[in-house]
Amino acid sequence: MLVVQKFGGTSVGDIARIKNVAKKVKQEIDLGNKVVVVVSAMSGVTNQLVDYCNQVSTLTTQDALAEYDSVAATGEQVTCGLLALELQSIGYKARSFLGWQVPVTTDDVHSKARIDEIDGTAILEAMKKYDVVVVAGFQGIHVASKRISTLGRGGSDTSAVAVAAAIKADRCDIYTDVDGVYTTDPRITDKAQKLDKVTYEEMLEMAYSGSKVLQTRSVAMAMAHNVRVRVLSTFAETTETSGTVLVNNNEEVMEKRLITGISYSKNDVRITITKVPDRPGLSASIFGALAQAEVNVDMIVQNISEEGFTDVTFTTSKEELERAKLAIDSVKSEAKYEEVKFDENIAKISVIGVGMISHSGVAHTMFKTLADKGINISLISTSEIKISVLIAKEYGELAVRVLHTAFELDK
Amino acid sequence: MLVVQKFGGTSVGDIARIKNVAKKVKQEIDLGNKVVVVVSAMSGVTNQLVDYCNQVSTLTTQDALAEYDSVAATGEQVTCGLLALELQSIGYKARSFLGWQVPVTTDDVHSKARIDEIDGTAILEAMKKYDVVVVAGFQGIHVASKRISTLGRGGSDTSAVAVAAAIKADRCDIYTDVDGVYTTDPRITDKAQKLDKVTYEEMLEMAYSGSKVLQTRSVAMAMAHNVRVRVLSTFAETTETSGTVLVNNNEEVMEKRLITGISYSKNDVRITITKVPDRPGLSASIFGALAQAEVNVDMIVQNISEEGFTDVTFTTSKEELERAKLAIDSVKSEAKYEEVKFDENIAKISVIGVGMISHSGVAHTMFKTLADKGINISLISTSEIKISVLIAKEYGELAVRVLHTAFELDK
Repeated sequence: MLVVQKFGGTSVGDIARIKNVAKKVKQEIDLGNKVVVVVSAMSGVTNQLVDYCNQVSTLTTQDALAEYDSVAATGEQVTCGLLALELQSIGYKARSFLGWQVPVTTDDVHSKARIDEIDGTAILEAMKKYDVVVVAGFQGIHVASKRISTLGRGGSDTSAVAVAAAIKADRCDIYTDVDGVYTTDPRITDKAQKLDKVTYEEMLEMAYSGSKVLQTRSVAMAMAHNVRVRVLSTFAETTETSGTVLVNNNEEVMEKRLITGISYSKNDVRITITKVPDRPGLSASIFGALAQAEVNVDMIVQNISEEGFTDVTFTTSKEELERAKLAIDSVKSEAKYEEVKFDENIAKISVIGVGMISHSGVAHTMFKTLADKGINISLISTSEIKISVLIAKEYGELAVRVLHTAFELDK
Repeated sequence: MLVVQKFGGTSVGDIARIKNVAKKVKQEIDLGNKVVVVVSAMSGVTNQLVDYCNQVSTLTTQDALAEYDSVAATGEQVTCGLLALELQSIGYKARSFLGWQVPVTTDDVHSKARIDEIDGTAILEAMKKYDVVVVAGFQGIHVASKRISTLGRGGSDTSAVAVAAAIKADRCDIYTDVDGVYTTDPRITDKAQKLDKVTYEEMLEMAYSGSKVLQTRSVAMAMAHNVRVRVLSTFAETTETSGTVLVNNNEEVMEKRLITGISYSKNDVRITITKVPDRPGLSASIFGALAQAEVNVDMIVQNISEEGFTDVTFTTSKEELERAKLAIDSVKSEAKYEEVKFDENIAKISVIGVGMISHSGVAHTMFKTLADKGINISLISTSEIKISVLIAKEYGELAVRVLHTAFELDK
């Protein structure tokens, strides 16, 4: 089998951990597999580099972000070289590839570039000469300008999945500090169960709803290229069946679950714009301004008005609040709203499962379970395989626990 | 004028110093000059990176040294990005170039690569769009393997001079922590004088004889390409006439000095191989083995033997002692010597000056001055513009001071 192993920042956090990672690679090679490793920067290093950049720049221009990328990319450059050295020291012919050496070609949106293409030829060619190849995650090259790009948040996972797709790997193992994907955050309830399998769609909804195990980008990439991703722990003993595997469709999930998991996010803010005149185009102007400011809007509710006015309510992440405020201010004269209210004292709870496509009653169970505990729902949004509700933050963990029990996810 | 400014590790040692460097660049631009900056890594960073590498590798194979280069090159990658950002922040259009982006093409002798060629086209092209270009020193690319190389000790100075040659710069200013080249080390005598001009040949002999201001490689490169190098301080106010300029020939040196400077090295070791049978080829076998082990041999004396045996004495640097020992051991059966003695308790004093070509009596003055102080000379070597002697280490600083006075170099 051809396997991609990806190790994140805490997995390569110091020299001892890099040696541990080399053992994980050895274990895979010893099984007779061909291995390509993708690594992040040592944890903390990227923050240090970003801090340096912030001390000399506001990082607002494209020229500045191009320099930022070149600086930030050094984090992965160091770890991939060190891991290759350690792999050599334990007896393998190993070599590293930087993004521009692969090449991982991206667009020129520096600091959050998107991968255009990965040419797997050089890696596959190197694997004829080397036992193992180590690739720097998070980075690529914008070919026309010959400049280094970085992929932004979650970039290394995305790199790993994209490399796996490019070389047609049989599996892409994402090593992290948890041993798989759980029905919910084990810190909230000790009844949380590790899932052996989860579909791409479910994982995507989980990531989008607050699960931090994988970033949405990498899951979307895996889904698009049908890469068999496995999430497992760097710090535990692992076997071929450890962790959680992302699978292509519901059929592979043996146990026909109604609900696969419950996500929980405290990172949202609810924004309410009051007394918008109820005329066509006014709320469109608001969301147009938000889109232009690259604010990701999550849940949206527009109340039906009685007196020719409407309240527009939506959520976004706390990081995007300042941008959202500026965007809303910019259309005040146009949208003619009265005021803007912000509420950060909220939690978003999402129940997710491909099972709900064929089973009705999920919403009913969810709402009744919360109501029985006196938990008020202030906003609801749904997709084919997800129902999210917004509640007061103080009830967040209670809500997760009672829903975990109600949907029979407890151990 | 087109000017290359090079800043070493202490000059870019932290963010405050990088901001200071940006001011030095601004000063040059304000004079109406076009500027290309070459930078080293922040002082200490390269050592940290090398330390990481040593923790996972013995760095003995080419594969290992290739990884080492990729890791070590990140030091300059960070500083050139940060300096470009700071230059942008003070109002210039600036961009950085890494070695592979220039490209600085080298051979594949990783960790101590030699520059094959620098194509100045991309830098010159960029200077049409940017006010200032920053180039990462110390690094290049081996084109065939598409892998990063580093130039080894003194590499950044060499990069700067090579870039200056490639873009036909009018001047290459090497900023460092001293304000120029002195007649001798000012820490040994406060009578040391800063030289306004020094010839390439003299600078080469000084570097070779222990002066740490510039590495021999960069001086040789400057001499070969006729690059007008200036050495000056990062930490002092500087004008267009600060520092010391390397000039092409004696004529430019207005004051017809007999001796330009006195170098002093405590970094040598004297190796004596006793009782080598005095037959053709035996000492050749010893020096052949040393050359193969890449041991740089400096002064050599072979005593005339009386009884068919000879003693071979030479010096090398302390860093090369272990390699030298192994090399000498390897030819014991062949060279049939009796024993090998090492003496690290030595100092090498060199008087240097193009003036001695046309003036006799320098050797006499030197030997007499030392003899008058009771300082014994154990080894002598000469070139056209240099006389070096080996003496007991305890007399080293005294010897420098009395020679400095004897050759009328005192203020």
